[in-house]
Amino acid sequence: MLEAVADALIARVDDLWVVAERETALGEVRLRGEIARSAGQFRLFAQVIRDGGHVGAIIDHADPSLTPPRPDVRRMKRPLPGVVAVFAASNFPFAFSVAGGDTASALAAGCSVVVKAHPGHPQTSELVAEVVRSALPSPDLLGLVHGMQAGVELVRHPAVVAVGFTGSVAGGKAIQALIDGRETPIPFFGELGSVNPVVVLPSARAEEVAGGFAGSLTLGVGQFCTNPGLLFVPEDAGLLERLAAAVRETTGGPMLAERIRDGYLGGLERLSELRVLAEGKAGDGAWGVTPTVFVTDIGEFADKLPRVAEECFGPASIVVTYREVAELLAVLEQLEGSLTATVHGTVPEEAAPVAEVLGRKAGRLIWNGWPTGVAVCWAMHHGGPWPASTSAAHTSVGATAIDRWLAPTAYQDWPAELLPPELQDGNPLGVPQRVDGRFRT
Amino acid sequence: MLEAVADALIARVDDLWVVAERETALGEVRLRGEIARSAGQFRLFAQVIRDGGHVGAIIDHADPSLTPPRPDVRRMKRPLPGVVAVFAASNFPFAFSVAGGDTASALAAGCSVVVKAHPGHPQTSELVAEVVRSALPSPDLLGLVHGMQAGVELVRHPAVVAVGFTGSVAGGKAIQALIDGRETPIPFFGELGSVNPVVVLPSARAEEVAGGFAGSLTLGVGQFCTNPGLLFVPEDAGLLERLAAAVRETTGGPMLAERIRDGYLGGLERLSELRVLAEGKAGDGAWGVTPTVFVTDIGEFADKLPRVAEECFGPASIVVTYREVAELLAVLEQLEGSLTATVHGTVPEEAAPVAEVLGRKAGRLIWNGWPTGVAVCWAMHHGGPWPASTSAAHTSVGATAIDRWLAPTAYQDWPAELLPPELQDGNPLGVPQRVDGRFRT
Repeated sequence: MLEAVADALIARVDDLWVVAERETALGEVRLRGEIARSAGQFRLFAQVIRDGGHVGAIIDHADPSLTPPRPDVRRMKRPLPGVVAVFAASNFPFAFSVAGGDTASALAAGCSVVVKAHPGHPQTSELVAEVVRSALPSPDLLGLVHGMQAGVELVRHPAVVAVGFTGSVAGGKAIQALIDGRETPIPFFGELGSVNPVVVLPSARAEEVAGGFAGSLTLGVGQFCTNPGLLFVPEDAGLLERLAAAVRETTGGPMLAERIRDGYLGGLERLSELRVLAEGKAGDGAWGVTPTVFVTDIGEFADKLPRVAEECFGPASIVVTYREVAELLAVLEQLEGSLTATVHGTVPEEAAPVAEVLGRKAGRLIWNGWPTGVAVCWAMHHGGPWPASTSAAHTSVGATAIDRWLAPTAYQDWPAELLPPELQDGNPLGVPQRVDGRFRT
Repeated sequence: MLEAVADALIARVDDLWVVAERETALGEVRLRGEIARSAGQFRLFAQVIRDGGHVGAIIDHADPSLTPPRPDVRRMKRPLPGVVAVFAASNFPFAFSVAGGDTASALAAGCSVVVKAHPGHPQTSELVAEVVRSALPSPDLLGLVHGMQAGVELVRHPAVVAVGFTGSVAGGKAIQALIDGRETPIPFFGELGSVNPVVVLPSARAEEVAGGFAGSLTLGVGQFCTNPGLLFVPEDAGLLERLAAAVRETTGGPMLAERIRDGYLGGLERLSELRVLAEGKAGDGAWGVTPTVFVTDIGEFADKLPRVAEECFGPASIVVTYREVAELLAVLEQLEGSLTATVHGTVPEEAAPVAEVLGRKAGRLIWNGWPTGVAVCWAMHHGGPWPASTSAAHTSVGATAIDRWLAPTAYQDWPAELLPPELQDGNPLGVPQRVDGRFRT
């Protein structure tokens, strides 16, 4: 089923990107790539459930020699019994929307899904839902609703067993408040705000930093949750000049929607107490914006925390100069949680204390790279401490994203005829099992 | 360290049970057994962290042939960065208190712990803390506070990263409200109320049911979260008479505290709209109570839902007679979540539809047994849908209880020198790793 969905998305790529382009202005290359990514997510989850490791099968045979005697106990994770509500994001009309990772992982878990469409791409949402449904054994496995009131009713609905969300901190808090008002609480997996600090160590190859930074900052008009919003660099006039030059080479573009453009302009206003290091060229289109990079030193930055470290969604960033790694550590310690944190350097030992702090602040640590671009693979973790995520233990990208929609059941002295195949002694599905304390694959 | 704690508890068992007996009246046999259980939990978690499977190590090597090229990504779970707050339960002064499973699993995860002592056994709590600390490399790894205000401050404290709790639904809601008021939300793992339905199918060996039920109901004066509060039986005058006779043979005992005794008497009052099937003999001691079993038919029971299906903590239960399995299914469907659900029968196919419903209502399914007694093993799941637990995906007993205090970090293109050993290619600790999509152990 999941592979049929992937095939259906790819078969309709020529229609899909055109509709999405009209609603998002993200461009053909990006949109085609994103459809391929969405299809790839469905294929990954097909692999995941064929493998079967996601159920965490554990078998402890009875041991009458113990005091007290131990019964036969077997445990595996099963789908949450109901409907997963998914709130689509604005910035990925495919990969974090109707056919996004939340939907793919929830269907893979064995749940049905109702998506609250993002108002930024309603027609794309309808077309994607139609394409996905055409590949499902029952169209009832995927519902689609539009509008804020429908979203409210969805979260309140007694059949809904969990909520996935990608969006703002304010949006996430609003959904949490709705969940708090439910008679039966349900888990909430929200991916909210993230500033994604990047630390350039004194040992870094400075000549590689400026171009990479400017590219990551302005990719997709900066509309990524992994956009590098803070760049900590050694005090070095040459490096600042290189960064400024690279930013001046960039060009902005149209943002996804008027509201998002207004949010970006508001963010620039908020940051205007800092000095502008450089701007890129203005973007055209209805909601065009200009990449803007501010600069400050670490003392001023620390004085203006936390407000200067709030996410400004779009192609804006702050370059923060530091003199000593020690003063840097104290400031990093004050940052809120992020999806990512990046270190540039050539001497791992120099990075160790920085990595220790950043490891408590972000869900993904990157070495000599850039945070934009989230590989869809087994090991990806796209989450982090609040406010990056409402649940630091979970990811919304990668194979383990399926874990959000599962909960375990233990079977005690249960008849073999009624045991799920994953827990049978013969292991007919060949899933990874831990048997009497030892892994068998 | 964990094994040293286990040894220290066993070495002091003669002192520990005496202090606990003074505060709980649970008796020498039970208390010695419970200390052994607590020590066993520390030993199990020592095995768990030696094994290393709990970190869920995943390695995806770089793949430049993909579009876009995939970086090297590695992921493992690490301890939540801070202090775990543990609220001790009244009914297990060792196994769910200062040296209980929450403390053992949190220390095993790598967190420090502050326990809010239960007011029912403050001296036991102090002595246990002293014994545990004597085996820890630093006494600061385990804190102990007393009193409701200290508990409130604990939940609000910024260094606290998660809360474990075993207690009432009201207590759990109060803690959740405190967490909702925090600036940074944290996960809450509460084990709250549970009625633990038991279904006796027409094919069950009726002669084995009555004695087992009466024993499970009155074990520990019914003060177990897994106490069988509902028994569904086929309409059969003979079986009812056998149940009544078995209950009449039981003897109550002193409950743990005046407040708990008063709660039990309030529960009996609430259930007094039902007919009493049988009572046991009155228990002596300061807060002695009488085992009491009510009886009703499934129609009356359904009419009086949900109030008759609320947990009554203590040796009380309701026997519900049914005529057809079909009418039983409709009523089971209306029950709230429980820690356990039990089926008695001899024909697995007869049990299948009942098991399907109960599998959505409880965290542990038991065949031809009784819910009291929770084996400490790899496969145990002691949790369930709300209100049995605040997080149906997690357990408070068994090896996977450690998962509550962990969150993943992904390392992208990270230098080998800075990678945790669990994620190194050489796998120096020999932990189970998933490498490029395949499990290796």
